[in-house]
Amino acid sequence: MSHTVLEMLASKWVYLVVGALKPGKRRYGEMQRKVEGITPKMLTQTLRVLERDGLVRREIFPVIPPRVEYELTDLGRNLADLLNQIRVWSEQHAPDIRDARARSLEGELVV
Amino acid sequence: MSHTVLEMLASKWVYLVVGALKPGKRRYGEMQRKVEGITPKMLTQTLRVLERDGLVRREIFPVIPPRVEYELTDLGRNLADLLNQIRVWSEQHAPDIRDARARSLEGELVV
Repeated sequence: MSHTVLEMLASKWVYLVVGALKPGKRRYGEMQRKVEGITPKMLTQTLRVLERDGLVRREIFPVIPPRVEYELTDLGRNLADLLNQIRVWSEQHAPDIRDARARSLEGELVV
Repeated sequence: MSHTVLEMLASKWVYLVVGALKPGKRRYGEMQRKVEGITPKMLTQTLRVLERDGLVRREIFPVIPPRVEYELTDLGRNLADLLNQIRVWSEQHAPDIRDARARSLEGELVV
């Protein structure tokens, strides 16, 4: 199992940034408004990783001020589908995990 | 998206331990032989997290020496299916990501 892919799956920002690009091309400022709670530093860093890994394509338009647009590549759209499956699983099963964890904690407190 | 689930997905040992339990019940010593490269400390820790989160059930047999068996719960089997989807995706696409990353690195070296 590739460590590369696991690291990506562990990043909350990867989920949110890829999710924000799902509907189509977006400018940097739009991304920042769409992805709640992301700092400019973290947005830039996440986009850079996604671009480096071939999941996001960046296009720069030579206007003043420069316009920069981001969009998912085919591979990025493919990742979006996988992330969606993970999200569905989490929504279905995270409550069970939380319950089990709470019960386990109760047991520890009683003992 | 639950942080709980993401953390679990980021652990290589979770993949390997859940994978080793897929065929059925296993004793601690069997697990250690099955999961290549895992230290006793990491195996114990991973099993504890999986038990706490309701993914693995532990059964202790009161014999001498005590026999301890581990098996996946329904939720654990369900997680195994998701992990399998992630594994298939990784195997299909990790080479594309590695290629993109190598190209990106070349670009940096040339510039």
